[in-house]
Amino acid sequence: MNRKIRIGMIGGGTGAFIGAIHRIALSMDGQYELVAGAFSSDEKKSRETGEQLYIDASRVYPDYLTMLTQEAMLPEHSRLDAVTIVTPNHVHFDPAIQALNRGFHVIIEKPMTFSLAEAKQLHDRKIKSGKEVLLCHTYTGYPMVKQARQLISEGKLGSIRKVYVEYPQGWLSTFLEGSKHKQADWRTDPSKSGIAGAMGDIGTHAFNLAEYVTGLSVVRLNASVRTIVEGRKLDDDGAAFLEFENGASGVLIATQVASGAENNISIRVYGEKGGLHWCQQENNSLYLQWPDRPTECWRTGSSYVGSYAAHNTRTPAGHPEGYLEAFANLYRNFSLTIRAKQQGETPKPEWIDYPSTPEGVRGMAFIETIIKSSASGQWTDFVK
Amino acid sequence: MNRKIRIGMIGGGTGAFIGAIHRIALSMDGQYELVAGAFSSDEKKSRETGEQLYIDASRVYPDYLTMLTQEAMLPEHSRLDAVTIVTPNHVHFDPAIQALNRGFHVIIEKPMTFSLAEAKQLHDRKIKSGKEVLLCHTYTGYPMVKQARQLISEGKLGSIRKVYVEYPQGWLSTFLEGSKHKQADWRTDPSKSGIAGAMGDIGTHAFNLAEYVTGLSVVRLNASVRTIVEGRKLDDDGAAFLEFENGASGVLIATQVASGAENNISIRVYGEKGGLHWCQQENNSLYLQWPDRPTECWRTGSSYVGSYAAHNTRTPAGHPEGYLEAFANLYRNFSLTIRAKQQGETPKPEWIDYPSTPEGVRGMAFIETIIKSSASGQWTDFVK
Amino acid sequence: MNRKIRIGMIGGGTGAFIGAIHRIALSMDGQYELVAGAFSSDEKKSRETGEQLYIDASRVYPDYLTMLTQEAMLPEHSRLDAVTIVTPNHVHFDPAIQALNRGFHVIIEKPMTFSLAEAKQLHDRKIKSGKEVLLCHTYTGYPMVKQARQLISEGKLGSIRKVYVEYPQGWLSTFLEGSKHKQADWRTDPSKSGIAGAMGDIGTHAFNLAEYVTGLSVVRLNASVRTIVEGRKLDDDGAAFLEFENGASGVLIATQVASGAENNISIRVYGEKGGLHWCQQENNSLYLQWPDRPTECWRTGSSYVGSYAAHNTRTPAGHPEGYLEAFANLYRNFSLTIRAKQQGETPKPEWIDYPSTPEGVRGMAFIETIIKSSASGQWTDFVK
Amino acid sequence: MNRKIRIGMIGGGTGAFIGAIHRIALSMDGQYELVAGAFSSDEKKSRETGEQLYIDASRVYPDYLTMLTQEAMLPEHSRLDAVTIVTPNHVHFDPAIQALNRGFHVIIEKPMTFSLAEAKQLHDRKIKSGKEVLLCHTYTGYPMVKQARQLISEGKLGSIRKVYVEYPQGWLSTFLEGSKHKQADWRTDPSKSGIAGAMGDIGTHAFNLAEYVTGLSVVRLNASVRTIVEGRKLDDDGAAFLEFENGASGVLIATQVASGAENNISIRVYGEKGGLHWCQQENNSLYLQWPDRPTECWRTGSSYVGSYAAHNTRTPAGHPEGYLEAFANLYRNFSLTIRAKQQGETPKPEWIDYPSTPEGVRGMAFIETIIKSSASGQWTDFVK
Repeated sequence: MNRKIRIGMIGGGTGAFIGAIHRIALSMDGQYELVAGAFSSDEKKSRETGEQLYIDASRVYPDYLTMLTQEAMLPEHSRLDAVTIVTPNHVHFDPAIQALNRGFHVIIEKPMTFSLAEAKQLHDRKIKSGKEVLLCHTYTGYPMVKQARQLISEGKLGSIRKVYVEYPQGWLSTFLEGSKHKQADWRTDPSKSGIAGAMGDIGTHAFNLAEYVTGLSVVRLNASVRTIVEGRKLDDDGAAFLEFENGASGVLIATQVASGAENNISIRVYGEKGGLHWCQQENNSLYLQWPDRPTECWRTGSSYVGSYAAHNTRTPAGHPEGYLEAFANLYRNFSLTIRAKQQGETPKPEWIDYPSTPEGVRGMAFIETIIKSSASGQWTDFVK
Repeated sequence: MNRKIRIGMIGGGTGAFIGAIHRIALSMDGQYELVAGAFSSDEKKSRETGEQLYIDASRVYPDYLTMLTQEAMLPEHSRLDAVTIVTPNHVHFDPAIQALNRGFHVIIEKPMTFSLAEAKQLHDRKIKSGKEVLLCHTYTGYPMVKQARQLISEGKLGSIRKVYVEYPQGWLSTFLEGSKHKQADWRTDPSKSGIAGAMGDIGTHAFNLAEYVTGLSVVRLNASVRTIVEGRKLDDDGAAFLEFENGASGVLIATQVASGAENNISIRVYGEKGGLHWCQQENNSLYLQWPDRPTECWRTGSSYVGSYAAHNTRTPAGHPEGYLEAFANLYRNFSLTIRAKQQGETPKPEWIDYPSTPEGVRGMAFIETIIKSSASGQWTDFVK
Repeated sequence: MNRKIRIGMIGGGTGAFIGAIHRIALSMDGQYELVAGAFSSDEKKSRETGEQLYIDASRVYPDYLTMLTQEAMLPEHSRLDAVTIVTPNHVHFDPAIQALNRGFHVIIEKPMTFSLAEAKQLHDRKIKSGKEVLLCHTYTGYPMVKQARQLISEGKLGSIRKVYVEYPQGWLSTFLEGSKHKQADWRTDPSKSGIAGAMGDIGTHAFNLAEYVTGLSVVRLNASVRTIVEGRKLDDDGAAFLEFENGASGVLIATQVASGAENNISIRVYGEKGGLHWCQQENNSLYLQWPDRPTECWRTGSSYVGSYAAHNTRTPAGHPEGYLEAFANLYRNFSLTIRAKQQGETPKPEWIDYPSTPEGVRGMAFIETIIKSSASGQWTDFVK
Repeated sequence: MNRKIRIGMIGGGTGAFIGAIHRIALSMDGQYELVAGAFSSDEKKSRETGEQLYIDASRVYPDYLTMLTQEAMLPEHSRLDAVTIVTPNHVHFDPAIQALNRGFHVIIEKPMTFSLAEAKQLHDRKIKSGKEVLLCHTYTGYPMVKQARQLISEGKLGSIRKVYVEYPQGWLSTFLEGSKHKQADWRTDPSKSGIAGAMGDIGTHAFNLAEYVTGLSVVRLNASVRTIVEGRKLDDDGAAFLEFENGASGVLIATQVASGAENNISIRVYGEKGGLHWCQQENNSLYLQWPDRPTECWRTGSSYVGSYAAHNTRTPAGHPEGYLEAFANLYRNFSLTIRAKQQGETPKPEWIDYPSTPEGVRGMAFIETIIKSSASGQWTDFVK
């Protein structure tokens, strides 16, 4: 496929947050071109967004179903290859299914669906469709997160014993949803977000990071989830004790009411031989601690990093990469996988290293389990 | 009292850890002189320790009871004013009671006693004795910890909502008690440590720090305490969800198996208006985060700090103070309080700001509650 | 101009460093499309690069003169708007002049030219052409660098007294040019780099950063420039005392032989009222130090930052932006300026805030002055 | 000598800065007792200081000559062993000479004397006296500074090429000496400080740190020294290019007008194989950078540190030690050396590792050279 992958966006009209991020991420490496969109349920807004993005007006659609239907009828040399779904949670499942049904690859925001049941359906549909799905757990796109995973999988830390993962935010410390704040609005609304607020929005990221880095599945947890800001309809704070399949234990923290906190998702993992620490705020450093030798700081872009970190880096050591590059890594690996498969080749392990429907199912199971555990105040096996 | 306070040490023979620390802490400010000791149950070792410390051989005793008895009979112009007890946990209660009974002030290591029942008795005895007791929760001696407490008590963060406190260590990642390691030996032995290992040794420090900084009491908790290293007789790892008297919630983490971790006790507190962060590794910095203005770094020794931090600092800003100075602050405040009371004066609030038997009772209640909660896997009210 | 700006690249064939960076930077915000290129003097390599970039083969040219000539003859609706020159220093001047002569805007790498004389000519040509020139001093594209400049220009630090700027690298610690290392090769070759090595490659960045942040011009300097690695033909290390127009003094350090160092360009500025510190390794933080209140950490994306920082940021606080975003800011502001001027509007101050030929002239004057001063071992007035 | 070393203090009356620091440093390890003093030229103040320190009134003297004379006449079992001189620079030489003449060991603040000529005389007198002299370049007392020196001496960095050393302070950013500020007063007064201000007060520390860590002597320098605050009589700011005996080059920065800066003396050294970085603000960490493997952070108290760092540490890793412990290390090593020599033993290399008169002579030569070079604006050979 000696051309850019053609992509259409669902959601992401002017004023939305994550749509703009996706547009940067897909543009960065010159592998995609954004040629169509149903940017908003408000037709005028959708059209204006299309204009600002220099998109041909004939391919800016009033709604996603129209886009999918009409694009599917275009000749192969111009029709979409993929869609990217950047709408609130309750508008993930249907467009994803509709897109797969019409033969488009799908990129989708997390949490993958509104419920675990939907997630399982989407996973099944994806398998049957033969198309690819990318789920945007951005944080696993960081080179030093990949380095952490690789070092652990190589046994450098020995058997894993302890995992501390946390995602502290402060932006919902006040009743922001009372002030026409679009982001706060839908994220705290059970009809749009689902049964969880903070646990769905950022708890799933922390959970995904823990399972990705360790390569281990959580089998049960004991949680305490709360709504701290008065009047809020969903949880905005929580923590859970985790138990992993190998017996390792962990603590997961996620909160949106840590007033003054930004977005410093972090993970620490300790094994029998040593530990590691990564945090988003210093995303280009990975700290390894040892009982008997100096702490090491592994750095993005260095000559000594592993194949996964190296593959996901664009600049030499000392040129800070960040959140947008991590996001673009998801898109880049997705494109490499699509291109390889299209050419009948086996994608390299570094290319297929992106989250997809299995991670989406795990995330929805996490949401249902943590809410259930907190309600009972007890250890709870993972919901299946 | 125009002379140094005369002090005798119980425990702290050659090879012990904390005894040497106490000797530095008591010497630093020229307020005490160490003139006697029962440094070890091994008489020879006690004598040798005395020699190394240049202590008059006539005041080096074979055991603490002999020391207390003989010193009590010395004339006032030479006899001890105070004793410092630096033995393992099971040898805290009796020497403390014996010392109070004979009219000596008492300095004692944490956890204060072997059980909550003993702690309550010691508290009562202290009240009746009219003597002073210092409990060595060292971490509350740091200037920036005191600054944190003062800022919160002044309402700078607004009503407190979240507390994260943690104490990660790695030194017990292996079965160290199997290799004649004196420290590991008694700390993992239930007959010497009590019902808790890590929770007693460092969990109590984290707990004390949380209550001290916030000025709030924990009313219930839900814990998960584990023994990770095979063969160990006491817990070496744990975590707890905390609920404070005002409804704030928290997470406490303490572990001794975080391989490679040193001793970086830390606390983060978030209120309605902002948050703060302190950790021992950067003990001279206190970070304040705000939703609407730059993060602030308050520094030990600066002109703008409050009266408690200022009082507990010896050098201008930029001259790093550390653990030994924090420890010495406990001793210094204790001496200032003793001197003031002896002269019939009221000690300043900054002087009586040291942990004593009430904190010791809280610590023992914490131990009993966390072990009980973990056994049940449920939220548990604080043991009384 | 309701379409993307069409750009052609000169240099940047496979294996080159900075060309790939430019392609990411120009793609990121969807304001440009790369439609043509003369990527290499090796025609086959140029063609292969074009293919990898999905560029129409008819617009991949064997050399820059052919590209400029043929593109100039294309109809307006398809011909290039601008060219970006990413070749070694000795191939900057001619393509830039040729492009301006044919009515293309020009983007050019630093140092701007091979000599000060050329720089002045290019500046004059640019003025006469009515076209725009962007000089890629990337580091001034960072939001927190812009915040530093804005705070100083608003007088927050008072009158400036001291400037410390440094750019430490380690990649030329060995005789890398002896091992067919393309980057090392031309950068240490006087026929391609000019009279300076490290001083031209990174010294000019440090110098530009100092003048940009302070808003002050250096009037004289006293330098010590050295060649440390045996056999090297140009300097790889140096330092200079600086004197600014207002009497402030400074120290500039640039080295490429700090073995193990990455790329942590940094600046500290002290005024009568306080100081600031920024470094690339923590590019999203700007530290302000005050004599009488806590140190402040200003963060990219925060609500309280000034108009320049805000304009140059794509994500909320806590989502790390980095080098590529700083680079993209140059391209974005350049596009906003071009679009505004084309529509007869006055660009906002935040848009025209990018380096151009005046900064290029200053950079070449810096190179000539620092080499002259070091040769004499004395204070030397800026070469004009 | 099975007793504490008896010490008398010259200077250090109430309100002085460094005297109180010395008292802490000498007390910390229980090796000295402060038994006499001539704390102030104001007799009343001297007496009051003695009382506050619980010193026998009969050994509190009105001036240093009286103290030295009378103490020398006391019987051996009670008279002083050593004196510590903590007065302004112009009162260093005479008391030191007088003390050596009477058979006392001498501890003395830096810069050692008022002039290079005096320094040489004092060095000669010390040699002839057979007594020991400790010069308080505190920063070489830090464990991680010693580790840096040891690693370099073992060749871990290869041949040394670059040294960056700096000492930024901000406390003299205003005309403090105009406001009865005792410290500012004498330090900016040529009749008390000598020919240099900042260069003598802190430049000498930076210089000493560079020579100590590298084990190399500076042979010439090119300096720019300034007085920035109007009305000040001595320099408050400066920088110098350094050339070391092996051809390595360096940059030294020292300033007292970096408004908001504390006291963060730091050093970076780069050799052929790698580099290291230490700064006082994070004094327990030593960073080693390598071109081909992760950066290492060596930590005070760790099992893997060398013999010098280990010997100069009191607590396990993770218990921050700081400035006062570094200072106490000087005193402790001095006491170990004195005791060993008295017993006819050869002190261990780790014990005699403290600054003495040779370092004092180097410091005074540095002062004279840097002032001379700055006046000429040229490279200047070290004054002999």
